[in-house]
Amino acid sequence: MPREIRVGFWGIGAMGKGMVRCVSRKPGMRIVSAIVPAGHGEGADLGRLAGLPEDMGVTCMADVGRALDEGKPDVVLHATASFVREVYPQITELLKRGINVISIAEEMSFPYIREPELARSLDELAKQNGATVLGTGINPGFVLDTLIIALTGICQDVRMIKAARINDLSPFGPTVMKTQGVGTTPEEFERGLEDGSIVGHVGFPESISLIARAVGWEIDEIRQSREPIISKTYRETPHARVEPGMVAGCRHTAMGLKKGEPLITLEHPQQILPHLDGVDTGDYIQIEGTPPVNLTIKPEIPGGTGTVAIACNMIPVVIDAPPGLATMADLPVPRAILGQWRKGD
Amino acid sequence: MPREIRVGFWGIGAMGKGMVRCVSRKPGMRIVSAIVPAGHGEGADLGRLAGLPEDMGVTCMADVGRALDEGKPDVVLHATASFVREVYPQITELLKRGINVISIAEEMSFPYIREPELARSLDELAKQNGATVLGTGINPGFVLDTLIIALTGICQDVRMIKAARINDLSPFGPTVMKTQGVGTTPEEFERGLEDGSIVGHVGFPESISLIARAVGWEIDEIRQSREPIISKTYRETPHARVEPGMVAGCRHTAMGLKKGEPLITLEHPQQILPHLDGVDTGDYIQIEGTPPVNLTIKPEIPGGTGTVAIACNMIPVVIDAPPGLATMADLPVPRAILGQWRKGD
Repeated sequence: MPREIRVGFWGIGAMGKGMVRCVSRKPGMRIVSAIVPAGHGEGADLGRLAGLPEDMGVTCMADVGRALDEGKPDVVLHATASFVREVYPQITELLKRGINVISIAEEMSFPYIREPELARSLDELAKQNGATVLGTGINPGFVLDTLIIALTGICQDVRMIKAARINDLSPFGPTVMKTQGVGTTPEEFERGLEDGSIVGHVGFPESISLIARAVGWEIDEIRQSREPIISKTYRETPHARVEPGMVAGCRHTAMGLKKGEPLITLEHPQQILPHLDGVDTGDYIQIEGTPPVNLTIKPEIPGGTGTVAIACNMIPVVIDAPPGLATMADLPVPRAILGQWRKGD
Repeated sequence: MPREIRVGFWGIGAMGKGMVRCVSRKPGMRIVSAIVPAGHGEGADLGRLAGLPEDMGVTCMADVGRALDEGKPDVVLHATASFVREVYPQITELLKRGINVISIAEEMSFPYIREPELARSLDELAKQNGATVLGTGINPGFVLDTLIIALTGICQDVRMIKAARINDLSPFGPTVMKTQGVGTTPEEFERGLEDGSIVGHVGFPESISLIARAVGWEIDEIRQSREPIISKTYRETPHARVEPGMVAGCRHTAMGLKKGEPLITLEHPQQILPHLDGVDTGDYIQIEGTPPVNLTIKPEIPGGTGTVAIACNMIPVVIDAPPGLATMADLPVPRAILGQWRKGD
C-alpha cells in the first residue's frame, strides 16, 4: 500500500537547510530525522533551524544512532562535506541500517575515480543491506555530466565534447571568495594554489569519468589547470574587492585525454561580476559529432537552488532503484516532483 | 560471458536505412535480420539496400517468422509506421518471441494516451515473454519531452513549461510537403486540415503525457491547433514553391491544461526556409520555476540523423531494462555508444 516517504537529513548547512525547506513542501514526504555535529544546533527544532516559520516537531540530534533509530528514515539527504574520504564513515552508518542515501558530496558523484576501494566497499555494503547510494548535485551531477551524457544520446558518433559553466560568485560569502582566490594579487593566487588554500572547482575528474564511462570512452589521462582571472575593471561585492590587475576568480579547466588527444574539455571559470568584463554567465555544451549539438542555458542554472532541487527530486528514483552504489548515468532521467508521490505508487 | 548483440530491423525506409548504417559501425553489434514488405526489397542484401558499399550477408525477407527464427535477434529496430494501431500487430510478433523492440512510431513514445488498451496488452505480452518495448525518436522521444523532463529535475517547483522546436523542412520530399501543407493557398490548407491530408506533427499528446506523468501533473485536457504559416517572401525548394501570401508550412501547437490553465505549451512550426522570413531554427525550452531554465539549442537537433542515433543508442539500455512497455522517462538517460558494448558487460 502506498505510504509516505520518511526523509532524514545529515548536515544542516546552507544546502541542508534548503533541502529541508524543499522536502517540507512535497506532499507524500515526511521529515523524520536530522543529524548535526555536536554543538551545532543540537536540540533545536529542524524547522526553525532551516528558517521555516513554525516548529516541525523534529529535533536535531548529534547522536546518529538515536536520530536514525527513532526517525526510521527511508532515505537520508546527506550534505556534510565534499570528499569521499570524509563522508565514507557517515554513509556507511546509513547503509548498515539499510537506509538509502543521496549525497551532495562532489566526489560521491563518481567515487570510483579518486577512491576506488571505498567506492567498491560502499557498493557492497549497499547491496548487502538493500539500500541505494547516489551522489548528485548541479555540478558535478548535472550540467557538466548528466546533461552532456543525455545530449550524446542523439549522436551517431561523437568526436569531441566541450562544455563551459560560467557563473557569478557575487552571492557567495568569504569562504568561497577565499577558495576561488577572489581579491588576491596574481602572486597571492599562485601561492594559494601551491598551499592548497585556493582550490577552484571540485568535481572535474568525476564529471569526465562519468561521461567517459557512460559513452564507453577510455580516457587515459585527466589534466586540470587553474589560472587567475585577472580583472580589467574594478569589481566589488559585500565580501570582495577587486582592482584592475587583481584576481576576480579562478579559471579552472579540465581535459579528459586519450593518447594525448582531448576528448572532453570542461571549463568552469568562477568569478565575481563577470559581466563587468563583458562576460555573459551561462551553461554551454558543444558536441562535435553526428549530428553536432550546440546548447546554451542562459543564465546558468544556479548552483545552490539547483543542487537542493536535484537532491530532493532524486528521492523517489533512488528509492525505486536497485541496491548498490548508483551514479546519475545509471538511473532514470531526473524530474521534478510536482505531484503526490508515495512509496509503493 | 559478454557476447555480441544481435540486431534486427523491421522497415527499411529512410530511417531504417540510416539505422542499419549506424548499427553496422558499432563494434559489438551484429546485424542478423531484416524484414521488408513483400515486393519492397525482398531478397536484396540489407547492406546494399541501406546504401553501404558492400554486401552484408543479410537477406531482406518478407516472411517475418523466417527472418526472426533464422536471425534470432536480441532486439529489433522497428520503423514502419506512426500509429500504435498500425504497428501493434508487428510489435506483438516480436514480443511473442521474447525479442526486445525499439520503435520510432511516434505514438509508441507514450501509447497509453491514444491506445490505452493496446498499450496495456503490449506491456503484459512483453512481461510474459521477458522482453522490453520502447518508443523513441527525436520528437516525440527527446527534444519536447525527455530533455524537458531532465531539466525539471533541477527545479524545486515548476509553474509552467513552454517549448518550441523550429525547424526547416527544405531537405524533405513531396510527402512531407503535402502533410505540412507547404505550397498550398490558405484555403487549400483549411480544406487539407478538414480532410486529414494536412496533419502537422504527430506526437504532441504523447510528449505532453510523458512529461505530465513523469513530474506528477494531472493534465485534464490536451488542446491542439494547426495554423498555416503564411509566407511574406518567395520561398522555393526542389519539392515546393511558395509565393508571398501562400502557405510555407504548418504552425502546430499543443497545450496540456489543468482546470483551463496551460501547464505545458509545445510549439512545432514546420516550414521551408524559415530564415527568409527572419525566423531562426532552433530548439527552445523555457521552464518557469524555481530556478527558471532558459535553454536554446541552435540550430535545432536534426530530426532524421537524431532519430536514427537515439534509436540505435537505446539498444544497450533496452536490453538491460526490466521486461515490459517502457518510456524514455523510465529508463536511464540516453547516451551515445562510442565504445565496445557487449551483452553481459
